[in-house]
Amino acid sequence: MFNDFVQAFNAHIDNVLSQIADSNVKDAMRYALEAGGKRLRPYLVFAMTCQNQNDLNVMNLAYALEMVHTYSLVHDDLPAMDNDDYRRGQLTTHKRFDEATAILAGDALLTQAFQIITKLNLKSDDIVSAVNILSEASGANGMILGQVLDIQNDTNQANQISDLYKLYAFKTGCLFSAALRLGNLLNSKREDESQLDQIGKKLGIVFQIQDDYLERTSTFDVIGKSNQSDLNNHKNTVIEFLGLERSKLSINELYDELNRDIMLLNETYPKLLDIVHWMKDRIK
Amino acid sequence: MFNDFVQAFNAHIDNVLSQIADSNVKDAMRYALEAGGKRLRPYLVFAMTCQNQNDLNVMNLAYALEMVHTYSLVHDDLPAMDNDDYRRGQLTTHKRFDEATAILAGDALLTQAFQIITKLNLKSDDIVSAVNILSEASGANGMILGQVLDIQNDTNQANQISDLYKLYAFKTGCLFSAALRLGNLLNSKREDESQLDQIGKKLGIVFQIQDDYLERTSTFDVIGKSNQSDLNNHKNTVIEFLGLERSKLSINELYDELNRDIMLLNETYPKLLDIVHWMKDRIK
Repeated sequence: MFNDFVQAFNAHIDNVLSQIADSNVKDAMRYALEAGGKRLRPYLVFAMTCQNQNDLNVMNLAYALEMVHTYSLVHDDLPAMDNDDYRRGQLTTHKRFDEATAILAGDALLTQAFQIITKLNLKSDDIVSAVNILSEASGANGMILGQVLDIQNDTNQANQISDLYKLYAFKTGCLFSAALRLGNLLNSKREDESQLDQIGKKLGIVFQIQDDYLERTSTFDVIGKSNQSDLNNHKNTVIEFLGLERSKLSINELYDELNRDIMLLNETYPKLLDIVHWMKDRIK
Repeated sequence: MFNDFVQAFNAHIDNVLSQIADSNVKDAMRYALEAGGKRLRPYLVFAMTCQNQNDLNVMNLAYALEMVHTYSLVHDDLPAMDNDDYRRGQLTTHKRFDEATAILAGDALLTQAFQIITKLNLKSDDIVSAVNILSEASGANGMILGQVLDIQNDTNQANQISDLYKLYAFKTGCLFSAALRLGNLLNSKREDESQLDQIGKKLGIVFQIQDDYLERTSTFDVIGKSNQSDLNNHKNTVIEFLGLERSKLSINELYDELNRDIMLLNETYPKLLDIVHWMKDRIK
């Protein structure tokens, strides 16, 4: 089911980019979007809805969110930020193109995300909600605040594990939370926004702890980027506070909590339970 | 009248930033927004409406547009782009802070622009229109396309003056056009969108030709940025095609056309005529 969606999602890229004028920035937008990734955020949008995966609203809303996520990676990889040459086993956008093109492609992806939302086949009230959710989650009170905290952790390492949790909740959790809240907009029976927000934040935290764990224990081949770059960048991770074994325990506990949280929602979301299970399984 | 508005606009910045969490990115957003500038785009929003300048919708819509403009300057000044150390006589954002902060502040300004629009006291249909206008004008079919053409002109100089006009229409005209179309949303009697679009594009073209002219004839003190940076960057400008005298004639002709275009609109817009007159007067 997950693979079916990812195939349909990837095949939809031409529709999404068809209205954009040809340029090297468009090529870079496509390159960054096609660079793959797990499509977790788009799938979370889908998993929260009772809509068909070929529903245009699902696809376009999922793309809007993935564009925001993708722009953040393109800018995050820049020399002035994390200075990464590879992501997901491929050259990063500024290495494949150049820095100016990568900056502009990131800007264009972010802008296009909002453009796509205005074209959704939804009531205007819901479109406004979608713009609100996405801009709040990705802005200076959301994902960007997470990046600020991340950079601070780089130069002035986090003293407490709660600082890292906060960093992860903002940097990753906000977009996970947005995914659920956006998917929720497509349902006639809606879940409580703040419950979805909490689930999304928690999912972001556990996902990042897993990344810390995988980064310390895996090779380039498995995670597709330079191994141990956090260590090289002198970042503190959860592993420094808990060690590998207790980190793994904590990951399992958080996923168990998430399962319960999802089952306590008003409706049942089997795809959401599946994807959380799949995420948990990234560490055997 | 223009100064009154600019004062009210500048005083509104605390309201606009009040919801944003404290961080160096917020400081950089404020720095970039406060760096001044002529507030032309915000004023154009105001000049198209019959609303009072203290109307919150006018102010917030004007700020949304100015935030998009400001983000584009912050990113445009980066070393990988134009590599400018000064703008409007002040250090550019990445020189005052650092590159990472400037990249994130630009991203946050762009995102916050859409967030602000969702809070307007307008019908949802009009909020969706505003998001649509702003994202279209500033994206890869608008301002960003203009920046792509600008970079191309840098490495592979424009062969025809029409290439430069196209560059100017996208790089500057799209946001001028958005200003008019956004202001138009606040009126009960609305003007035709395509007419406003044409006026905005033409205004962008003539404004840029003036910039070419001023850059070639003025000093740092007058225009507040490094003089002759286009020459140093080997960019072609309209001056290369027409020379100074014919450029000046062309500027005057275009402003006369704009006056007629504005007077042919259904309603009368005295502030719009005033500001176009003021813009024309940048060259005596």
